[in-house]
Amino acid sequence: MNIERIGVSLEKELLAAFDGLIGKQGYPSRSEAIRDLIRQRISTGQLANPKAKAVAAVFLVYEHHSTKLMGMLADLQHSHFLQVISSMHIHLNEHVCLEVIVLRGPVGEINRTAENIISLKGVKLGRINLLATEVA
Amino acid sequence: MNIERIGVSLEKELLAAFDGLIGKQGYPSRSEAIRDLIRQRISTGQLANPKAKAVAAVFLVYEHHSTKLMGMLADLQHSHFLQVISSMHIHLNEHVCLEVIVLRGPVGEINRTAENIISLKGVKLGRINLLATEVA
Amino acid sequence: MNIERIGVSLEKELLAAFDGLIGKQGYPSRSEAIRDLIRQRISTGQLANPKAKAVAAVFLVYEHHSTKLMGMLADLQHSHFLQVISSMHIHLNEHVCLEVIVLRGPVGEINRTAENIISLKGVKLGRINLLATEVA
Amino acid sequence: MNIERIGVSLEKELLAAFDGLIGKQGYPSRSEAIRDLIRQRISTGQLANPKAKAVAAVFLVYEHHSTKLMGMLADLQHSHFLQVISSMHIHLNEHVCLEVIVLRGPVGEINRTAENIISLKGVKLGRINLLATEVA
Repeated sequence: MNIERIGVSLEKELLAAFDGLIGKQGYPSRSEAIRDLIRQRISTGQLANPKAKAVAAVFLVYEHHSTKLMGMLADLQHSHFLQVISSMHIHLNEHVCLEVIVLRGPVGEINRTAENIISLKGVKLGRINLLATEVA
Repeated sequence: MNIERIGVSLEKELLAAFDGLIGKQGYPSRSEAIRDLIRQRISTGQLANPKAKAVAAVFLVYEHHSTKLMGMLADLQHSHFLQVISSMHIHLNEHVCLEVIVLRGPVGEINRTAENIISLKGVKLGRINLLATEVA
Repeated sequence: MNIERIGVSLEKELLAAFDGLIGKQGYPSRSEAIRDLIRQRISTGQLANPKAKAVAAVFLVYEHHSTKLMGMLADLQHSHFLQVISSMHIHLNEHVCLEVIVLRGPVGEINRTAENIISLKGVKLGRINLLATEVA
Repeated sequence: MNIERIGVSLEKELLAAFDGLIGKQGYPSRSEAIRDLIRQRISTGQLANPKAKAVAAVFLVYEHHSTKLMGMLADLQHSHFLQVISSMHIHLNEHVCLEVIVLRGPVGEINRTAENIISLKGVKLGRINLLATEVA
């Protein structure tokens, strides 16, 4: 990996505020923090392209007596098996489970699968998190 | 305003992707684009503090025969007159109006006023946009 | 406008939590609050279609001695005059201005214009707020 | 669980647009779709309270030769072991890994831990997804 060094000019007050923020966040250096801002910005931009390579974490909360849902989730994951990489199941309490399903593929396709998953009957809360990975 | 110059090291590929993105966006220089990323990051961080100074643009779509709504909007703006800076009214078609109301004050307070506004009967779509301004 | 009435079944606890929330927000009725949730959901869905009709509020903070920026902003607004509906200018303090520019057109086009605007040299903070209006 | 049934009145056109959307998403019924909108709204509202019970999925992309990062991640997870429920590790390619770490606790605390994690040197992309779970 080739590293380049660029110069950035900015106002003293802005730099001080940034140093304060990244200190609290625990960043080891300004370069590290600025690289992260740049990568996040590029990754966000790529999400607008339905064909960009991405991973999605689908995050579900549901009741686990809802055995029908568990069956449907398993079916959906198999019918989209090229997309599903892995999933993780956590018991939040006696009744409620959290499931994280990781999908991989073009933004547009994995987004559609993810929407189908969080629309299943029995899912109480669902959220989709997309990350374009070309930049990584 | 004092300007400082710092060095940032980053991977060649990342720099190329960033240059491509900011070229499309029309940025005149990398420094300008990086300063913007830093300011946005700081501004977002400040929104977590309910006492940070901020401006809010409240963005409403509503039917303008709904004369009761217009009265309520005017009342609300007057009862919060210390917060309301200005508003702008646009006719989208014969029936539908867009109104942009700009509020100013501590994040927590203007957010509450904004929530009250978009909850008024007759408002069809509403959105609140907060910008912490201490960094500007 | 034809009104329909539908039935919705939901858990007692969920209904109580919802009633509490919309009471605090100041909604006059559950129907009103639920219609708003539905419209927001549809409007968000439409933003994925670059051709959907939308309005954008571009929200800028900049220094007003930056007279070059004001000229560029005026130029940009004229060269995109079919898109720009209106703009509003507010003095936040002796140095800093807030400008709200309202654009109208297909999601994809007004988003591009908005990105160009917030990338101009001299803009300190910028945010773009898109609302798909077909549902309104 | 006690179920209640409420009536909601809305415009014919709005209902038709909603039926179209939830049909595409795969919802089995309107009640199901409206309950989801209500739960998401309540969950989002609770995130404003730093003491609300929540889960967070922290989503990291990093290079796995970066063995120092893997050590730091393990340390961080142990030092916050009351918060970390589980984690999942996925190989995106020979160099790059995706890690999903699930935290549990009050919104404010798990958010801080999550910020520390995504600020670690070696993390290329990071995202935090919070879900308030009291409503579930």
